[in-house]
Amino acid sequence: MSLASGIGSYKQHNLISYALGMSVTMELLLHMSETVEKIFINSNTEENENTANLRELCVQHNIPIEKNDKAFNILSRKGNCFVIAAFRKFEKPLNQESHLLLVNPADVGNLGSIVRTAIGFGIHNIAFIRPAVDIFDPKTIRASMGAVFHINFEYFDDCDIYRQRFPTHEFYAFMLDAQLSIQIAEFSEPYTLVFGSEAIGLPKEYSDFCKTVVIPHSSKIESLNVAVAASIAMYVATAPKKHKQRGC
Amino acid sequence: MSLASGIGSYKQHNLISYALGMSVTMELLLHMSETVEKIFINSNTEENENTANLRELCVQHNIPIEKNDKAFNILSRKGNCFVIAAFRKFEKPLNQESHLLLVNPADVGNLGSIVRTAIGFGIHNIAFIRPAVDIFDPKTIRASMGAVFHINFEYFDDCDIYRQRFPTHEFYAFMLDAQLSIQIAEFSEPYTLVFGSEAIGLPKEYSDFCKTVVIPHSSKIESLNVAVAASIAMYVATAPKKHKQRGC
Repeated sequence: MSLASGIGSYKQHNLISYALGMSVTMELLLHMSETVEKIFINSNTEENENTANLRELCVQHNIPIEKNDKAFNILSRKGNCFVIAAFRKFEKPLNQESHLLLVNPADVGNLGSIVRTAIGFGIHNIAFIRPAVDIFDPKTIRASMGAVFHINFEYFDDCDIYRQRFPTHEFYAFMLDAQLSIQIAEFSEPYTLVFGSEAIGLPKEYSDFCKTVVIPHSSKIESLNVAVAASIAMYVATAPKKHKQRGC
Repeated sequence: MSLASGIGSYKQHNLISYALGMSVTMELLLHMSETVEKIFINSNTEENENTANLRELCVQHNIPIEKNDKAFNILSRKGNCFVIAAFRKFEKPLNQESHLLLVNPADVGNLGSIVRTAIGFGIHNIAFIRPAVDIFDPKTIRASMGAVFHINFEYFDDCDIYRQRFPTHEFYAFMLDAQLSIQIAEFSEPYTLVFGSEAIGLPKEYSDFCKTVVIPHSSKIESLNVAVAASIAMYVATAPKKHKQRGC
């Protein structure tokens, strides 16, 4: 389905998705302008410095701007969105650097937050094992604050196919029943940091081919939120040299 | 408003709030059963091991269980909730141990996630500067997975009142324009880790009385999600000895 056939609510099988809000739209225009089909504004969109920048980028990249209140009713139920970009979904294959591997992630907000942290800490590749939430869901894009426009990603039907593609990666699976505490783990590059779903964590068989790592926490909680756990793991994995400077 | 006057959608000024879902309800019954007024189940609630445990706890604490489909329609729009606990809100004042201080937090999901991490890493006190989201919002409670039933918390109208109450606390304000990288910061107990709102971060005047700390990240993102930043800060602040063991 292309935009020509009209605006509908977002569906995973659509070829078009949407960036909701000014900051996410600007991130898209600055980094993936070639995918943008159209910008929507509405009757409440104020003309200010931000819209002036937006208009300039649209002229530069030959992107039409359309005033269309209906698009906002369909795509953005919250009233605080004044710009929407419609863009063609794209592929950005994984490279040989370090990765995250998310097994059956189910929450778009958590995924957005993970992508944002990954880009923040210089991890540019996320692999998914299906079933998995949609990186192009407008809620993921918004929660990522547009960081999805910087990430390489691929979806796999099972982990064997992924492992065959990246045979030299060292696997670190984050689970409660683990060999190593993150406080003593060393992450050799290129690594793959592996996280399970919000509801059930990682299947036990991941311990057959991964080093298993735990982020120790009190027994008062069952587990950390997966976006929190992945963010702490990325922080530690990407900053080991700096940690070692501490009084050493 | 008490429960006797009927079930309405949750409002911040109500004296009653709601734990949605089995795991959060069990956390409430195990730790704050004296606050529970009533348990609601619905026509789709299956009798299984979990409901048997729930019934046993309710008998033990003399808490009524009511089948009430209407309560679910009002309180839980998502279809995946089969148990709701109605409880009286409570006070749990801050103690003299280390704290988080959240200045104008606006997102219930982020707050729930922060409370969960805090309890996980042994930080049992959260102070808020108003305006601030409601720790008793059912969405906060659910995002915390029930960790709100373990936390001490207080709301303050401004930071001066808070500082006068806790004059010996050492303040660390997390902001982008900071003196110290978290990688070399040392946190002396009792400390207060200070975080600003999702939208605008911390007001600059916090640097007048706080050590300022940054979690370094790539310029490809504007900032980390506040729940992610607070979680990394709590991880580092509570595990310094273990970090220092790394190869030292």
